[in-house]
Amino acid sequence: MLDAIPTANLIAGQPHASGSRTLRATNPATREQLPEHFTEATSADVDAAVEHAHKAWLRFRKTSGQQRAALLRGIADEIEALGEQLIDRAVAESGLPAGRITGERGRTCGQLRAFADLVEEGSWVDATIDKALPDRQPAPRADLRKMLIAMGPVAVFTASNFPLAFSTAGGDTSAALAAGCPVIVKAHPSHLGTNALVAGAIQRAVEKVNLPAGIFSSIQGGNTVGVRLVQHPKLAAVGFTGSYAGGTALMKMAAARPVPIPVYAEMGSVNPVFVLSRKLAADGPGVAAMLAGSVCLGAGQFCTNPGLIFVERSDAATAFIGAVREAFAEQASSTMLNEDIVEAYRQNVGRAGKSKGVELDYQAAASQPKWSGEPTMAITDGKTFLANPKLQDEVFGPYTLLVECADAAQMQAIAEQLHGQLTATVIGTDVELVAASLLCETLTHRVGRLLFNGVPTGVEVCPAMHHGGPFPAASSPMYTSVGVDAIQRFVRPICYQNAPESLLPSELRTGNPLGIWRRVNGGMVRG
Amino acid sequence: MLDAIPTANLIAGQPHASGSRTLRATNPATREQLPEHFTEATSADVDAAVEHAHKAWLRFRKTSGQQRAALLRGIADEIEALGEQLIDRAVAESGLPAGRITGERGRTCGQLRAFADLVEEGSWVDATIDKALPDRQPAPRADLRKMLIAMGPVAVFTASNFPLAFSTAGGDTSAALAAGCPVIVKAHPSHLGTNALVAGAIQRAVEKVNLPAGIFSSIQGGNTVGVRLVQHPKLAAVGFTGSYAGGTALMKMAAARPVPIPVYAEMGSVNPVFVLSRKLAADGPGVAAMLAGSVCLGAGQFCTNPGLIFVERSDAATAFIGAVREAFAEQASSTMLNEDIVEAYRQNVGRAGKSKGVELDYQAAASQPKWSGEPTMAITDGKTFLANPKLQDEVFGPYTLLVECADAAQMQAIAEQLHGQLTATVIGTDVELVAASLLCETLTHRVGRLLFNGVPTGVEVCPAMHHGGPFPAASSPMYTSVGVDAIQRFVRPICYQNAPESLLPSELRTGNPLGIWRRVNGGMVRG
Repeated sequence: MLDAIPTANLIAGQPHASGSRTLRATNPATREQLPEHFTEATSADVDAAVEHAHKAWLRFRKTSGQQRAALLRGIADEIEALGEQLIDRAVAESGLPAGRITGERGRTCGQLRAFADLVEEGSWVDATIDKALPDRQPAPRADLRKMLIAMGPVAVFTASNFPLAFSTAGGDTSAALAAGCPVIVKAHPSHLGTNALVAGAIQRAVEKVNLPAGIFSSIQGGNTVGVRLVQHPKLAAVGFTGSYAGGTALMKMAAARPVPIPVYAEMGSVNPVFVLSRKLAADGPGVAAMLAGSVCLGAGQFCTNPGLIFVERSDAATAFIGAVREAFAEQASSTMLNEDIVEAYRQNVGRAGKSKGVELDYQAAASQPKWSGEPTMAITDGKTFLANPKLQDEVFGPYTLLVECADAAQMQAIAEQLHGQLTATVIGTDVELVAASLLCETLTHRVGRLLFNGVPTGVEVCPAMHHGGPFPAASSPMYTSVGVDAIQRFVRPICYQNAPESLLPSELRTGNPLGIWRRVNGGMVRG
Repeated sequence: MLDAIPTANLIAGQPHASGSRTLRATNPATREQLPEHFTEATSADVDAAVEHAHKAWLRFRKTSGQQRAALLRGIADEIEALGEQLIDRAVAESGLPAGRITGERGRTCGQLRAFADLVEEGSWVDATIDKALPDRQPAPRADLRKMLIAMGPVAVFTASNFPLAFSTAGGDTSAALAAGCPVIVKAHPSHLGTNALVAGAIQRAVEKVNLPAGIFSSIQGGNTVGVRLVQHPKLAAVGFTGSYAGGTALMKMAAARPVPIPVYAEMGSVNPVFVLSRKLAADGPGVAAMLAGSVCLGAGQFCTNPGLIFVERSDAATAFIGAVREAFAEQASSTMLNEDIVEAYRQNVGRAGKSKGVELDYQAAASQPKWSGEPTMAITDGKTFLANPKLQDEVFGPYTLLVECADAAQMQAIAEQLHGQLTATVIGTDVELVAASLLCETLTHRVGRLLFNGVPTGVEVCPAMHHGGPFPAASSPMYTSVGVDAIQRFVRPICYQNAPESLLPSELRTGNPLGIWRRVNGGMVRG
């Protein structure tokens, strides 16, 4: 017998259900509402969550890396202990297959443990020490020591397309807790049950390591709740994964506060792919299959699915286009995440098909009366693409626009006009990649990640990953939302001048008791 | 015979003087206008500067650290070669003494050379490599390599109070050029001749190392020129040192662009000082002299001069206040930077004196009919201070507000309500500093730099320095405008996935040809 899924807001370890409005989740595969009525947070609930977070921060910010590592590992353990109940619920709320959700749970727990390793090791604080030079002329130098510290309570707006890995205990939450920042999660309205289960897991982990309950809260509701949260004076930063409209609305709101705070918004992109001519001639069907699979993976609902494919016009390109069409015909339609997303997908595809010079070259037949996204390939030429910036807008779903460029010069001109992207990909033979150095150099400055002979879906979680990019892919090109460097979004430097040893954090003490890497008098040392 | 000072805008190595409006600088010590008529930039001039910068960036961003180091050292050499003409002009335009300007020139050239050393050594790019794991189960890992790269053209809005070190070739310019970002300087209207001389020095250095002239331009004008510059679509970032009003106006403008860009604004602060009771009893006159000197140094025109001093009421505190008063009486009035600053100082002091519960305890007699700032100490009690947030506003000039707190609890309550600051300082005996750990912990989270038993003026240029702090001291608490870490404001990560070796920058190549520190598979190595 499974425990019932809690329907109250979880605020500093306590259920809050005084609000009069409720929300329900829907199974996108069946279009049936799930039974639970989740209570929306009141304004008082939102304020309480931030006040508790701020109070808890006074203690949480002083915890050691070991303590925070124990918390993060505890959360991963508790999530795994939820077993099939979590998998089943996430499947029911997202329409994603159980295999995908199981894999995503692995990634979620892997992220938590990677942050645990990072803060347990400790060097991430970038400890920098310039020792006093009392005899320096014309003036002595003071003792200066600097490190990164937690900024304060963080609001996390969760993603529709990763109910676990970019959600309640996802990358943003892991990074913020690792840094020593309390988290207030705004549950995604599509995944209210999944959120409640994971929030409970976090709550149990917090209790087990004896940290203040206020370091984590989960609140439910719509825009009113989000606005109240972002405007709270004690909030320090916002993490967001979602649409351009949502991300830019939060950015404007945060910039207009009496004390502006950063919004780290990952807003997706169209992830252009450039397929060079020799490769296309040598292995057209192989490349076509790889790309169609990436476009349609998970109903095309990845931030990094390739929404633009560029080729140079030739007989081989014509054959390649045929191969892409055939590869699309192999792709199955699958359930999309929710009604809004299906509706937007259908409207966007329809609009693309009506754009001057754009043709819907392949469109899968409409399937069952469920919320299904049909794989679709549109086609246009380089001149049309250059003339219409709207063709760079993201169509969230299993859709791509294939652009036949007149020649390499036009392909280069297009690369120079691309909006900011999470990724770009160049596919070519070894010889032609090296010859395409100008194209690659141009793309380097339009994207966060540049790939060769692969597909951008499948974002690895590791230190060298950068998942972000120039606006509008992300709010700032400087930060990643995947990988341990995501911790940098929630910290800032503090410098101590001539501090007594006993008032210094361990990271900055003279004997380096934590044995971390530090910059001392300009050089890296761990001694 | 000195060369005449150029009066045209300098745009990519060429003089531009087609505008019809001109500006003149004024000697604040004599209130006489200096002879030259500097031409304001037209909108076309502003656009040309950014277009040239963007074009030059295509080449500049690919230069090696060695090449950029040669540029930075060349600029320092050319500035020194200007000799007395530069010193005399900066004195005439700022009213600051020649000794101060000579020291500031040393700091400016030292900063340029520190950035040269940084980029020549090369590890600053934070190269991070996770090697491919082709046999990993369930899926192989791609080869991922990440480093920091230049963001693009940077606008630098120069400071009134550092005609050299935070100006044309100051910290922002040095950091941006070191990163590989072209710079467009908006000359400070008070230092037009100083700017023209330094701009010429930069131009000569750019020529000598054979870099494109577009990597540096200097334009003259008022708000219209600044607005045009910040709104130009090819601008990537803004550096600013100045007032809260100016900094926040730029922040709003940059956030409202179709593609928002970061504004790194250092807007000053009131730099509170907490003098603990035993220290005050043990060495009141010594502490008083140190603080009065810091408040009045350079007519109080440092971002870090202490504008608030807190003591706990006692007989010793009463004696200390008398000592501060006497120390203020020892301070000379001196010329302020320009008429606007003198006027604002007089108005702000007048307003403070009329605030309920605030008394102007010491005010130097008005001096000669020149633009002089009279040392002024105001006094109030903790209750009044807590009730009136306006008393936290900066009074730019040789002014401080001494606050007598009722007890240690009130002092702590005040610390908790402080706005974001560049610095805070705690002065106490060894024993009482250790006992004041709660106060210190609170201040840590309100400031960018926490000092002990010293004064915040005299900002050291070194890696461990942090000159920035929570809003409103700076636009973001995450960045410093002093020290080599200032380079982080003008760069962002790029990640390469499975890139052919020949397309990788040297910093990321397998053999580590530059011998820099890198994070490889999670560990720091230089081998």
